Amino acid sequence: MRIVLDALGSDRAPGVDIEGAVRAARAFGREIVLVGPEEVIRTELARHDAEGLPLSVVHASEAIEMREHPSRAVRAKPDSSIVVGMRLLREGQADAFVSAGNSGGVLAASLASVGRVGRIPGVLRPALSTVFPTLQGVSLLLDIGANTDCKPEWLVQFALMGSIYAQRVLGIARPRVGLLANGEEETKGNAAVQAAHEALRGMTLNFVGNVEAKDLLQGAADVVVSDGFVGNVAIKTAEGVAAMLFTLLRSEIKARPLAALGGLLAKPSFRAVAKRLDYREYGGAPLLGVNGVVIIAHGRSDSLAIANAIKVAIDAADKNLVETIRQDMADAVTVLEGPSGALAGTTSRSTDLGGAPST
Amino acid sequence: MRIVLDALGSDRAPGVDIEGAVRAARAFGREIVLVGPEEVIRTELARHDAEGLPLSVVHASEAIEMREHPSRAVRAKPDSSIVVGMRLLREGQADAFVSAGNSGGVLAASLASVGRVGRIPGVLRPALSTVFPTLQGVSLLLDIGANTDCKPEWLVQFALMGSIYAQRVLGIARPRVGLLANGEEETKGNAAVQAAHEALRGMTLNFVGNVEAKDLLQGAADVVVSDGFVGNVAIKTAEGVAAMLFTLLRSEIKARPLAALGGLLAKPSFRAVAKRLDYREYGGAPLLGVNGVVIIAHGRSDSLAIANAIKVAIDAADKNLVETIRQDMADAVTVLEGPSGALAGTTSRSTDLGGAPST
Repeated sequence: MRIVLDALGSDRAPGVDIEGAVRAARAFGREIVLVGPEEVIRTELARHDAEGLPLSVVHASEAIEMREHPSRAVRAKPDSSIVVGMRLLREGQADAFVSAGNSGGVLAASLASVGRVGRIPGVLRPALSTVFPTLQGVSLLLDIGANTDCKPEWLVQFALMGSIYAQRVLGIARPRVGLLANGEEETKGNAAVQAAHEALRGMTLNFVGNVEAKDLLQGAADVVVSDGFVGNVAIKTAEGVAAMLFTLLRSEIKARPLAALGGLLAKPSFRAVAKRLDYREYGGAPLLGVNGVVIIAHGRSDSLAIANAIKVAIDAADKNLVETIRQDMADAVTVLEGPSGALAGTTSRSTDLGGAPST
Repeated sequence: MRIVLDALGSDRAPGVDIEGAVRAARAFGREIVLVGPEEVIRTELARHDAEGLPLSVVHASEAIEMREHPSRAVRAKPDSSIVVGMRLLREGQADAFVSAGNSGGVLAASLASVGRVGRIPGVLRPALSTVFPTLQGVSLLLDIGANTDCKPEWLVQFALMGSIYAQRVLGIARPRVGLLANGEEETKGNAAVQAAHEALRGMTLNFVGNVEAKDLLQGAADVVVSDGFVGNVAIKTAEGVAAMLFTLLRSEIKARPLAALGGLLAKPSFRAVAKRLDYREYGGAPLLGVNGVVIIAHGRSDSLAIANAIKVAIDAADKNLVETIRQDMADAVTVLEGPSGALAGTTSRSTDLGGAPST
């Protein structure tokens, strides 16, 4: 098995990414292909005790920056680490691609005409996901940004794909799947969520209904489905609130001498909470629906986070994630009615994928 | 001036609500009309030193519960405190209505045929709002649940109404108005947000563009506009994350003896943070766009929160909130193009409100 890593991905690339690859190669014994400027990578590798580890390098001269427009950057930079890495995946030279870079760029590269991996047949839209900590463990939220105006049938597919991922890679036997909504009642939600709700109730998934945002972190569902706009708002709000709370606590503790002493004594507890919330512990999250294992790591990743993301990629490849989704899509039928694409009903165990182009 | 208070509003009604009314009557010297079962209210009032305070009672025999379906409950319970209170407002017997009850019920009562207050002429949709604490002060977020699938022109009106409220009642000279989105760039957002963005750029509002959810609590804008589905997800996520963090901190601190001591020493700092985040400090938030001052308080309100909500209602009435919005709506024109209601452009200083029914 070979995992391709975008050496220019993280905010502190290539140092952090390459160190993560070295850690992963040592820990997991699978071959890791580093994609980026060869000379830079070799120099960086020389700083580690990487002798004998299953590491190789494929040259790519360009980098797609975080703030670049994804599809324009992919078109303009055919020799970027993201486009080249994705090509290796498409050509079957690798089993998975991992990047801590521009996630929109990774998505665009997976679908762009040059070096594209494309969608799994039957998948209407790929979805970006994230794994987040809850009071009960972890949950998967998707979509968090790939699709801003979602049709109900896309949401239904996100539910299917998310459930497969949670089962295969997160190891949850019968994942509880919920729809993110503004209330638990099935009458809640916007039009797309209400239609998806109805469709999901008729399926064999372990659908638990609507999940309110306040219950997200209680672990109300293992897989939480939303459109990419709403999912992005939820995850970014969570990040913002956590950051604000820690900022406020720090300043209020520093402002009082006795409290400052108390803060010192309580430091291990603060650390334990921070660790619970640390994205680095959870590795990356998949770009679901593309025809290959693609794992996105956080831009702020350190080498541990990169190594964990590589581990996630290995697990997903080992567990035949893509093949399972392909099979499930072939088994499920989404009946689309009328030109508006309104969802009439969705049932499993059928073969027709009406109106769903595969690429 | 007379303020009507729903005596059956809060989760701990009527005790908390009536105590709040007593506090407000004593502090602000305006007449407060308590609406609910007369005997119950009189008994409760007798427990306070309310002699001589400007408090009166209007009987209403029914209560709309938190979990009831808003418009069905309003139809089924014409003698509920919410419907009766709203009628007093409509009949000009009061200058404002305050409730800590079912916010959907308050909205439905304001628009229902019996005892309705109706919309301000020109307003397409009323919006529920909330005032939330930021690192810089407070911001107003709207809509947080009244409208789940919003047209761009509704969002534009939310921006206008929110700006007026922030200026008049929150006392912000030139409120910065932003659109909640999945990125700062104007190409971000779903279709409705993108169209609203374009329209807002052509207006005289202090429009600061898109606001990312992670920057909400940094105080990136004084008024943050979103559709009610997304706004609800944002505010509920924030509540959920804050609750989860405090839960985790408490349990991790209790788990370590030294940290537990530290936690005791740092208690004033924790309290200071909790106070910063305490919704009770900010009183209620307006239902904007209805033809009267309607203030919604949190269901978990205590008497301080109720008194603060009454203060907000007094301020809004004093500052002619409704009249100002009415004037602004008459001055603004929303050009709707085609049957789909797509927004072609919105400019100020004109009188035609094409296609906008006033009720």
